[in-house]
Amino acid sequence: MDVKLIGITGGSGSGKSTVVRRIKDEEPESLLVSQDNYYKSAPFISNDNITAYNFDRPDAFDMDLLLDNLSELKNGRACMMPQYDFVHHRRCDEFVRVEPKKLIIIDGIMIFQDHRIRDILDLKLYVDTPADIRFIRRLQRDISERGRTVESVIEQYTNVVRPGHYSFIEPMKEYADLIIPEGGYNEGAMKVLFSFVHSICH
Amino acid sequence: MDVKLIGITGGSGSGKSTVVRRIKDEEPESLLVSQDNYYKSAPFISNDNITAYNFDRPDAFDMDLLLDNLSELKNGRACMMPQYDFVHHRRCDEFVRVEPKKLIIIDGIMIFQDHRIRDILDLKLYVDTPADIRFIRRLQRDISERGRTVESVIEQYTNVVRPGHYSFIEPMKEYADLIIPEGGYNEGAMKVLFSFVHSICH
Repeated sequence: MDVKLIGITGGSGSGKSTVVRRIKDEEPESLLVSQDNYYKSAPFISNDNITAYNFDRPDAFDMDLLLDNLSELKNGRACMMPQYDFVHHRRCDEFVRVEPKKLIIIDGIMIFQDHRIRDILDLKLYVDTPADIRFIRRLQRDISERGRTVESVIEQYTNVVRPGHYSFIEPMKEYADLIIPEGGYNEGAMKVLFSFVHSICH
Repeated sequence: MDVKLIGITGGSGSGKSTVVRRIKDEEPESLLVSQDNYYKSAPFISNDNITAYNFDRPDAFDMDLLLDNLSELKNGRACMMPQYDFVHHRRCDEFVRVEPKKLIIIDGIMIFQDHRIRDILDLKLYVDTPADIRFIRRLQRDISERGRTVESVIEQYTNVVRPGHYSFIEPMKEYADLIIPEGGYNEGAMKVLFSFVHSICH
């Protein structure tokens, strides 16, 4: 099986997930791999002290395991994928067996920082969305889905998310094959991406 | 005939022409339309006083005629396209009859500034290349193909090209569906664009 890996990165709130979901809707036979599954355990963290931990740096992720999993899938073999418990901030005990597909989409905020991962991606996309829009989306998500307070979201954003964005994420545009302004509601970009994923899957 | 128009913009030296040439190589049945054909006449300009004229602003182009021509082609009708004499800086007397094709690529530095043109484009691409690389390419081209001196190229670049870039061209990224870093030697971007133009032409 000829397996193609498409990597999608961009800042928190940029619209990566919408791009990924729409590709999955268009090509249900594709496989999604979220870098979030590869966070390292930080079991001492709760919503009360969440701003004490920096999730927005490359070494918050188990890049070796991500690379191993992607390499197996790229070679047409199943892999054992970790699962992450976002309530307790730790890797779950059980891994899930995942079968390869012709099209694999990997998304995450820190996937281009490791040159070994960049090197096995067949296409590198960067979703570029203005900083204020990204913050607003993150604020809405963290309040509604993660039970956070406005002040806690602002503190985490100001202290770690924003500096991490400019230190680690924004410079990764340099490695992108294509930059998608505004993410998954950009219909022009989506129709081009759809034609590409069709060419892979059919 | 269902006609699709792809607009490609970006600064002078960004690599637009390479993107266009490679799409044409990939789909020989496509039609290329260069905005350069739509420069207004500036017959008082020669290489000696070229820096006295500003070619780097939207009203250096006959946008109405460009829009007319594109509208005819979009509707499946032939158009009469102007030709430009770059030696004497004026529109040639003869127009050329151009037949429509399923895929039409329009490239130029000022095609997104007119909302009427933006509105008839099916896809808007912006080629984004670092300023120093763009200047170097322009310097090489103007010396080897246009018989210009280094000092004259620098003067024109500093006085009109560069200000025009930041005033008129760079802000057009806002309207782009996709941003292509580095232009036509970006293989990742080209393979995605090829799949899209195939989907139009076949």
